Amino acid sequence: MSLLDFKSNQFQKKLKSKQQLVDKALHFFLKKQDYVPVKLHRSMEYSIFSGGKRLRPILCLAVAETIQLQESIALRLACALELIHTYSLIHDDLPALDDDDFRRGRRTNHVVFGEALAILSGDALLTLAFQILADYKHYPSAYQKNIPAILYELAKQAGYTGMVGGQVEDILSEHVKPSFQKVINIHRGKTGALFLASVRIPAILKGKTSPILKSLTLFGEKSGLAFQIIDDILNEVGNVKIIGKKTGSDLKKGKLTFPKVIGIERSREKVKQLTQEAIQALEPLGEKTAFLKTLALYMANRSF
Amino acid sequence: MSLLDFKSNQFQKKLKSKQQLVDKALHFFLKKQDYVPVKLHRSMEYSIFSGGKRLRPILCLAVAETIQLQESIALRLACALELIHTYSLIHDDLPALDDDDFRRGRRTNHVVFGEALAILSGDALLTLAFQILADYKHYPSAYQKNIPAILYELAKQAGYTGMVGGQVEDILSEHVKPSFQKVINIHRGKTGALFLASVRIPAILKGKTSPILKSLTLFGEKSGLAFQIIDDILNEVGNVKIIGKKTGSDLKKGKLTFPKVIGIERSREKVKQLTQEAIQALEPLGEKTAFLKTLALYMANRSF
Repeated sequence: MSLLDFKSNQFQKKLKSKQQLVDKALHFFLKKQDYVPVKLHRSMEYSIFSGGKRLRPILCLAVAETIQLQESIALRLACALELIHTYSLIHDDLPALDDDDFRRGRRTNHVVFGEALAILSGDALLTLAFQILADYKHYPSAYQKNIPAILYELAKQAGYTGMVGGQVEDILSEHVKPSFQKVINIHRGKTGALFLASVRIPAILKGKTSPILKSLTLFGEKSGLAFQIIDDILNEVGNVKIIGKKTGSDLKKGKLTFPKVIGIERSREKVKQLTQEAIQALEPLGEKTAFLKTLALYMANRSF
Repeated sequence: MSLLDFKSNQFQKKLKSKQQLVDKALHFFLKKQDYVPVKLHRSMEYSIFSGGKRLRPILCLAVAETIQLQESIALRLACALELIHTYSLIHDDLPALDDDDFRRGRRTNHVVFGEALAILSGDALLTLAFQILADYKHYPSAYQKNIPAILYELAKQAGYTGMVGGQVEDILSEHVKPSFQKVINIHRGKTGALFLASVRIPAILKGKTSPILKSLTLFGEKSGLAFQIIDDILNEVGNVKIIGKKTGSDLKKGKLTFPKVIGIERSREKVKQLTQEAIQALEPLGEKTAFLKTLALYMANRSF
């Protein structure tokens, strides 16, 4: 693969093949169970298979490639991460929160299944993520001892000290005075925490410690923040066809965003800078980082 | 302790002291973190400390006593169970679900903190339960290998194949034709699953297998179902001062309940029968079952 060329056929092909792998694995983990109400299963499936880019799972697979963790094992972690991400979107879209009727060009879960099902499907996906991760029979014996640590990591990053905390900060910050530190805090929790989990969990399972874990943590922090700034920019100036929902919705809600605090141009510069720093952070990891680095560039160059 | 006398001072005193232990441990696990939004923390605390009877944690402690698992370890499991129970009540009370403004005589979470905070506090408590359970550094080394299994058990019982599945069945069954099997299915998921987790998790951590795990499972199934039938009866005929919310609310919502399917009298008989069966199921566990058995009787004799 031509290193760092995210437009290359080779990278795009690899990305596509990983997405397909993740989708297949998600189908496996979400298979219908006789004793689960059909409507609940349909609602969970609806949101899981709604055109997500699978960025968190692919980040996880790319780290697995870098540290040589078997892909079949990494896919389990990858799916758990996507389940957490999906639940957070379902709850985030609810009328009581962001009140979004569309996501990725499709009607949101509560519009199709009603609010009650949307809340409970989110709860079910969140819980299923932990169930999949804790399903110890499917890990090689060498990794058994690290399973509690990956569960702890996921819970910490997804919970009140991570993603949920960030979502609450986000809600509470509507229409408050813009501050650089505040918007960083929100983004660190809302998006950053799950990015961190995505790159750290495969390494923790493999038993990696510092300096490798430290490099990956830095990479996750930088690329996660860059990703969220792009989201902010796209929300303000993006093409509705690309982002699948109305632009300007953050502004209308009085959300605290990067463009609001430092303007569009400086936000774009910040994305570039963070992406470079993310890629540099991977230097100690050696040669097998090409896909992971290119992924960071790819994420930094979403349409704007 | 006078065996099976749930009115005895000795039993009541022991119950009270366990409740206090659980409360103290919950305060420890919910301690304020600098980087958690204050309002989120307040909302989580509000519902955790709202007069719950701590039945699931106490069941867990009673099983720990029976199988001789250290109480300090069992308290961690007990708190995780109470967090799951509390999150499920917060989400269950939401306007989109049961729309209850009061619980245990206090305003429900969304009435005090708003719907958005209530949804996110529920998510945070659910996630924190897994974080507490996965916090491997606090388990003796002999139990380390069983930590994934207790996480798997909690997720399975709390998720779409357990509690959440039951809640969805419950919603979907409003105003449908009453059927004995259907109401059993709802109760098995909605209440039974977490009762099962409460009695099974300490045993799984201790490495217990059949026949002990089988006895406890049977006990959990029977006593859990009995407990939910009492809830149904109390909702229909109970004293508003005792249950802390309006009676008859299930009827008004067209909920499928035991009294609706087999009448009040037969429901009461069913409670007695199930409680006897639950107590009998514990026979193979030997002598240290007095507290656990008395607990089953105590639960079966809530005010009606």
